[in-house]
Amino acid sequence: MKDPSELPHPSRADLKLTQVLFALSDPARLAIVRHLAAGPQEMANCCAIDPNMPKSTKSHLMKVLREAGVIRNEAKGRNRLLSLRQDDIDARFPGLLQSVLAAE
Amino acid sequence: MKDPSELPHPSRADLKLTQVLFALSDPARLAIVRHLAAGPQEMANCCAIDPNMPKSTKSHLMKVLREAGVIRNEAKGRNRLLSLRQDDIDARFPGLLQSVLAAE
Repeated sequence: MKDPSELPHPSRADLKLTQVLFALSDPARLAIVRHLAAGPQEMANCCAIDPNMPKSTKSHLMKVLREAGVIRNEAKGRNRLLSLRQDDIDARFPGLLQSVLAAE
Repeated sequence: MKDPSELPHPSRADLKLTQVLFALSDPARLAIVRHLAAGPQEMANCCAIDPNMPKSTKSHLMKVLREAGVIRNEAKGRNRLLSLRQDDIDARFPGLLQSVLAAE
């Protein structure tokens, strides 16, 4: 039986360059990516997410990042663990994430 | 007097990472960027632009790329010359364009 808390994630082979670029092209989404570059974070503790942001907006940000294959969003007890899919992005698009994270 | 055929272009210092990523995040815009990586092209001869595309759609693609600072669009006689602002993007976001152009 499928765990209802498991969200679908594209495989490494299915990552699409334009979709990854789109996911990174929004300041709020990019702030989350920069934050997760330091390591996985529980969603509730991710300080790159504005605490005043409506829940629906936050869910949408996470959905765009997850569906593009930029982050993993996995159940962890009663919380959710967010992590950057750096290895997958580096494997498919070498240098891309590095240049984006290095840019001011 | 300002030449009415001169369109505004952001300066190198004014390029914004998220705006550049957005400009690159669309397959039709990315195809034009890849094409211009080989050298400047007259808009009328740019075979990366679908000839069946409505003029308004084509104008919008060019506007997004120009306003993000990804391409220059300059009057050249009765035509327009399109060129990739590779030096400006490389100076501001080292490695970004290279990784995007190298990706399959």
